[in-house]
Amino acid sequence: MQLAVSSDMLVEGRHFLSTVDPARLGHKALAVNLSDLAACGAEPLACTLALALPRADETFVAGFAQGLFALADTHGIELVGGDTTAGPLNICITAIGQVPPGQALLRSGARVGDEVWVSGCLGDARLALEVFRGRVNLSRAMSGSDFDTVRMAMEMPQPRVALGLALRGVARSAIDLSDGLAGDIRHILQRSGVGATVNLDALPRSAILAAQPQALQHECLAAGGDDYELLFTAAPGQADAVRAAGQRAGVAVTRCGRIEAEPGLRWVDGAGRPIAQAFIGFDHFA
Amino acid sequence: MQLAVSSDMLVEGRHFLSTVDPARLGHKALAVNLSDLAACGAEPLACTLALALPRADETFVAGFAQGLFALADTHGIELVGGDTTAGPLNICITAIGQVPPGQALLRSGARVGDEVWVSGCLGDARLALEVFRGRVNLSRAMSGSDFDTVRMAMEMPQPRVALGLALRGVARSAIDLSDGLAGDIRHILQRSGVGATVNLDALPRSAILAAQPQALQHECLAAGGDDYELLFTAAPGQADAVRAAGQRAGVAVTRCGRIEAEPGLRWVDGAGRPIAQAFIGFDHFA
Repeated sequence: MQLAVSSDMLVEGRHFLSTVDPARLGHKALAVNLSDLAACGAEPLACTLALALPRADETFVAGFAQGLFALADTHGIELVGGDTTAGPLNICITAIGQVPPGQALLRSGARVGDEVWVSGCLGDARLALEVFRGRVNLSRAMSGSDFDTVRMAMEMPQPRVALGLALRGVARSAIDLSDGLAGDIRHILQRSGVGATVNLDALPRSAILAAQPQALQHECLAAGGDDYELLFTAAPGQADAVRAAGQRAGVAVTRCGRIEAEPGLRWVDGAGRPIAQAFIGFDHFA
Repeated sequence: MQLAVSSDMLVEGRHFLSTVDPARLGHKALAVNLSDLAACGAEPLACTLALALPRADETFVAGFAQGLFALADTHGIELVGGDTTAGPLNICITAIGQVPPGQALLRSGARVGDEVWVSGCLGDARLALEVFRGRVNLSRAMSGSDFDTVRMAMEMPQPRVALGLALRGVARSAIDLSDGLAGDIRHILQRSGVGATVNLDALPRSAILAAQPQALQHECLAAGGDDYELLFTAAPGQADAVRAAGQRAGVAVTRCGRIEAEPGLRWVDGAGRPIAQAFIGFDHFA
């Protein structure tokens, strides 16, 4: 078997808010790494946790561990090591998975003519962030229960491990959406030496996001970040196999674009008309 | 093969000084993880790097990468993934190694009657730290070139990977010394359900440390931290095999104690007289 390894570092104020429930943070810290493994079509085996804490805070650690272990148990993986130290709050989880030789989904596998697919719904996590930021007014634009729903998307992402496994031999390339579709798809395009056109109107969205102004929708969908859905490409003849993989994994899959020879990323609307707007992926140093 | 995984997090001001040469920091960040693998008798395969940086600092990153890759090349391992984000300076490297099933050196393998051994010299890294802290006066107590030497021990530890491999089938238990012998040996004692007596006078030390006052020597040797030497136990009949392993690995090995049935850790001097002093390992939250 080949090993697949993912290591993500989460920093307070940048990847999570200081007010987040520690259990949800424990879940998310592992989920983002399992999402990376899912994008490789890898089966998760184990993880390590390195944690810097401003002070020994038993309540925080207990909650964090509960959330982390609940997700680890769901995926049958073990925490095999780690490190705890004093320092500004920082969480680094490394997840290790395995995939049969030659079967890993790669960023470099996209071919001209492939269809572009995404799993689940996009943009809810970003919408929740915009509520926290005060850009979306909770009392005017969204009900409290709708906010709870999009907040769950932000704080409790579900890594698409089962879908990644089901897409082995079906998808030609894959990546998980962590910094926003506009930025993440470029990794596939660059590694594969291709371009793409994506239909903004086809991108799957929740009813909650669909009720927001169109400009905000577009920003959340195309450059939202924190989606932790899979974006993948497959040959057109594989559309039924892709849908079957989605069904086996219990997650919706939506066709939203096409791989083309012309380099770069182009956006169109549902009628195929070009959309000029440039979306920029989340930049951690911006 | 079984996988061995180590994940260590280094925080500025706690694990390294802000003035450290970035190349040395890159070396050390990987070295501390390879040291963990060495203590398992594992052969390193690959590593990941997660890095939080206050700002995009190309000079720092270039130096850091140079130091890290130089050590990775020495051990024939590859950087297979990672993450970079903005945040208070924090470095988390995860190293992955392999060991044949059943051959890993464990903390739980010590048996009553085993002899206790350590590799290399202890205490130089702590001595260097005490110079930085101003407790040891550089002009009075140590020459500049001696300081450079102990500073290398602190900033450029050499992970005992070759020794760990050579000790497979020879040592019964092992750990690497990162938080000081007094604290680290307790992990072996607790996991193995045994106690130990350690001869403080037998602990190997450099001529530079041997020239310091005895109280400081003892503190650096027994509770120094940052040694990254191996402490291991072996049956008395294995002494020649242990020395041969040290020779193959090109590192000195020194016998310094014995595993006993009585729980706890006891210190004696070279004449076997008890030393009452309690040494406390480095506490990251103290």
